[in-house]
Amino acid sequence: MASQATATDKASKKARFEQVFTDRLVQELVEHVRVDHEMPEEATKWYERSLLYNTVGGKANRGMSVVDTVEILKGEKLSEEEYFEASTLGWCVELLQADFLVADDMMDYSITRRDNPCWYRVEGVGNIAINDAFMLEAAIYFLLKKHFRSRAYYIDLVELFLESASQTMSGQLLDLLTAPEDSVDLNRFSMQKYDRIVVYKTAYYSFYLPVALAMRMSGITNEQAYKVALDILIEMGHYFQIQDDYLDCFGTPEQIGKIGCDIVDNKCSWCVNTALLHATPDQRKILDENYGVKDSAKEKRVKELYVQEPISLPQRFEKFETESYQKLSSMIDQVDEQGTGMKKEVFHAFLAKVYKRSK
Amino acid sequence: MASQATATDKASKKARFEQVFTDRLVQELVEHVRVDHEMPEEATKWYERSLLYNTVGGKANRGMSVVDTVEILKGEKLSEEEYFEASTLGWCVELLQADFLVADDMMDYSITRRDNPCWYRVEGVGNIAINDAFMLEAAIYFLLKKHFRSRAYYIDLVELFLESASQTMSGQLLDLLTAPEDSVDLNRFSMQKYDRIVVYKTAYYSFYLPVALAMRMSGITNEQAYKVALDILIEMGHYFQIQDDYLDCFGTPEQIGKIGCDIVDNKCSWCVNTALLHATPDQRKILDENYGVKDSAKEKRVKELYVQEPISLPQRFEKFETESYQKLSSMIDQVDEQGTGMKKEVFHAFLAKVYKRSK
Repeated sequence: MASQATATDKASKKARFEQVFTDRLVQELVEHVRVDHEMPEEATKWYERSLLYNTVGGKANRGMSVVDTVEILKGEKLSEEEYFEASTLGWCVELLQADFLVADDMMDYSITRRDNPCWYRVEGVGNIAINDAFMLEAAIYFLLKKHFRSRAYYIDLVELFLESASQTMSGQLLDLLTAPEDSVDLNRFSMQKYDRIVVYKTAYYSFYLPVALAMRMSGITNEQAYKVALDILIEMGHYFQIQDDYLDCFGTPEQIGKIGCDIVDNKCSWCVNTALLHATPDQRKILDENYGVKDSAKEKRVKELYVQEPISLPQRFEKFETESYQKLSSMIDQVDEQGTGMKKEVFHAFLAKVYKRSK
Repeated sequence: MASQATATDKASKKARFEQVFTDRLVQELVEHVRVDHEMPEEATKWYERSLLYNTVGGKANRGMSVVDTVEILKGEKLSEEEYFEASTLGWCVELLQADFLVADDMMDYSITRRDNPCWYRVEGVGNIAINDAFMLEAAIYFLLKKHFRSRAYYIDLVELFLESASQTMSGQLLDLLTAPEDSVDLNRFSMQKYDRIVVYKTAYYSFYLPVALAMRMSGITNEQAYKVALDILIEMGHYFQIQDDYLDCFGTPEQIGKIGCDIVDNKCSWCVNTALLHATPDQRKILDENYGVKDSAKEKRVKELYVQEPISLPQRFEKFETESYQKLSSMIDQVDEQGTGMKKEVFHAFLAKVYKRSK
C-alpha cells in the first residue's frame, strides 16, 4: 500500500507539472507566434504540434527538479504563483532538452524517441525539424521575458540558459567527432574525452542548470553558492551518466525501459573506455573486431569480454559507485549553509534519486 | 579615377572590418571553447574551420551597416575602441546570418553558397552542420557577454538578437510550409503570406537589427526612436526583398552575380505572387503547368508570361519602386530628430544603398 500511494503521488505530481505546460505555456507560445509574429494558422498549428510532440512525454525529471529545489530552498509548500513560476523555469529546461533531442536524433540518425518516431521521421517533417529545434530553443527566451523580465535576476536566467546550451553543443561536437556513426576506430576513444563529453553534453544542463535556476528564483546571490553547486552537480551528473552507460549494457530491458544498444551503435560509453583502459592486447583485438557493428553475435562477444578479468566491469562499476557516493556525500557535508544560503538537502535529495538506481 | 578610388575605399573598408573577425574575434571564440569548455584540439580546429568557412566570404553588408550607423550617429570618425565594439556587434549579425545560412541550406537542399559547397556538403561534415549552426548562434552571446556585459544596454543587445532570431525562424517556417521543395501548389501562395515571409525571414534581422544595435551602442534610449526605426526599416527590407526577387528573374547573371532560379525552385517570390494576382484564367493555367519545374523551357514560358499584359511585371515593378521610394522618403522626413535622438541620415544612407540598385 505504501508504495502504491507513492506511485500515485508521483503521478499526480507529474500531472500537475504537465498541466502548466499543456494548459498555459503552450497557449502563450502559440499566441506569441500568432499575434506578435503574425503567423497564419498553418504555421501556428505546426508550431503547437512540434511543442507538444517534442516536449511532453518524457520523464520530465529535469524540469520537475527545478520545482523540487525551489520548494526545498523555501522550506515550505509553494504558493500557486510560486509553483507556476518554478514550473515555467522547469519547462524551459524541458524545452532546451527537446531542442537537443530533435537535433541529436537527426545527427545520430535515430529511429524512435519515447516509443514514437523521432520528429524528423514524422510524415511531412523531414529537415523542417532543424528549424523546429531552433524554435523550441527560442521558446525559452520568450517565456523568460514574459514571466521574469521585471526580476533583478532576469539576465542571470537568460545567461544560464545561453551558457548551458553552449556547453551542451561543445559536448555534442566532441561526441560526434569521437564516435561517428559510420566509422569505428577505438583509438579515438579515451576516458579523458569520455569525461568531457559527459560533463559538457549532459551534466551542465541536466544537473547544474535546474538547481542554479531554482537558486536564482529563490534569491540566492552568493556566487560561492553557485560554485559549490556546480562542483557537486557536475560530479553527480558524471556519476549519473556512468550509471546510464552501465545499465545500457547490464540492465534488463524491463529495468531501463529500452533495449540498450551502445555497443552496436559505436557509442563512446564508460563501458568501452574502461575496457580499453584495462584490456590485455588479446582482449583489445577482440574489442576492435567486434565493437560498433550492427551484429548481435559481435555485441554478445563484447558483453562477454566486459565481465572477463582484468576488464571486470561489474566489479569496477561497483567500486566506482561506492567511491562516488562517498565523494559526493563528503562534498555535500562541507557545504556552508549559513555562509552561502544554500541547503544541503537540495543535494541530498538529488543524490537519493540517483544513487543505486536500477532504471 | 573617382570610381576606382571608391572601389579601393570600399575594399579597404571591408578588409578592415574582416580583420576584426579573423585577427581577434575568431581567436577569442576558439580560446573560449578550448579553455572554458576544455575542448581538445580536434573540436577547436573543427569549430575554427566552421567559423571561418561560414561567416567570412559574403558581402558583410549587414555587419558593416552597424559600423556605418554608429559613425553617422556619432557624427565623426570612431575611435579605435569604438570601431572595434561596433564591428563586434556587426560580426554578431554576420554570425546570426551564418547560422541561418547553414541551417537554411540544409532545409532547402542547396548545393553551393558563395561559390563554395554548402557547409553540410563539405566532406566529413554532413549533419554535424546542425550542431555547427547552433554553435555559430551561441558565439553571438559569448561575444556580447565578453565585450558588453558591463554596459547598461547589455540586456537590450541580448534581447535584440534573441528576438530577431525568433522572428527569422517564424518566417522560415512559413516559407517552408508555403513553398516546399518537393510539392508545387500555387494555391498555397498569396501576397499576404509573401509579405509576412519577407518581413519575418529577412527584414528584421537584415535591416532593423543592425540599426537597433547601433542605436543601443550610441546611447539612444527613447523607445519611440526604435519604433520609428522599426517601421522604416521593415518597409525598406520589404522593398529590398522585392527588388531581389525581381532581379532574380529580370537581372542578368553579370548584374546579380548568380543565376536566378526562383522559378524552377518553386520559390514564393514577389514575381509569382504578383502574376497570380493579375493573371487571366488562361495565364493562370500556364503558370500552374510551368512553375516550379526543373526544366528550362518551362522556366522560359513563365518568364514570357511575366511580361505579358495584364501581368506586366516590369511596369508593375517600376511603379512599386517609385511608390516605395516616395513612401520611404516621406517616412524619413517625418523623423523627429530632436525628440528621439535619431538621425534621418541613417535611413537616407540605407535608402541610397538600396534604391534602384541593379545588383
